[in-house]
Amino acid sequence: MATQQTTENVVFIGKKKPMNYVLAVIMLITSGADRVVLKARGRAISKAVDVAEIVRQRFLKGTVDIAEIKIGSEEVGEGTQRRTVSTIDIVLQRVQ
Amino acid sequence: MATQQTTENVVFIGKKKPMNYVLAVIMLITSGADRVVLKARGRAISKAVDVAEIVRQRFLKGTVDIAEIKIGSEEVGEGTQRRTVSTIDIVLQRVQ
Repeated sequence: MATQQTTENVVFIGKKKPMNYVLAVIMLITSGADRVVLKARGRAISKAVDVAEIVRQRFLKGTVDIAEIKIGSEEVGEGTQRRTVSTIDIVLQRVQ
Repeated sequence: MATQQTTENVVFIGKKKPMNYVLAVIMLITSGADRVVLKARGRAISKAVDVAEIVRQRFLKGTVDIAEIKIGSEEVGEGTQRRTVSTIDIVLQRVQ
């Protein structure tokens, strides 16, 4: 292959406690990742923001900052259960 | 006064249903506001994203888009109740 692809490091925010996801981000960054994307849907969106803030303000202060925040919508479920949920992507990036 | 100050239109997202805030945004935009800021803390952050998505994708599609999203932290409460909560500001702006 002529081109080298950067693997995107994604952490999906779900039902676990915030600190689980904070640790996942710290492990990715300390093992060399320059960029980690936090992805969440629905109620987990608030938790994704908590995780980003804990990483940025406490554990990796000065090492990592927020590069981009995107919000969107997704259709989930089938038939009568079908509904729209909001989504967020928070891109954390190594500073310098 | 020599300078004219633009009043910032802020909608604070709290415990009401999303549609209340959607209507507040629609009223501000239809009465001439070019820019409306949705502000939320803690668990209301997910609701703020829902409100932004409902406005942008359904009611004011093509009229309003997201100009900026900022996240942060705030200290709330006193003494032993003191804790850090995450915050979000979503800036909705009239297109063109």
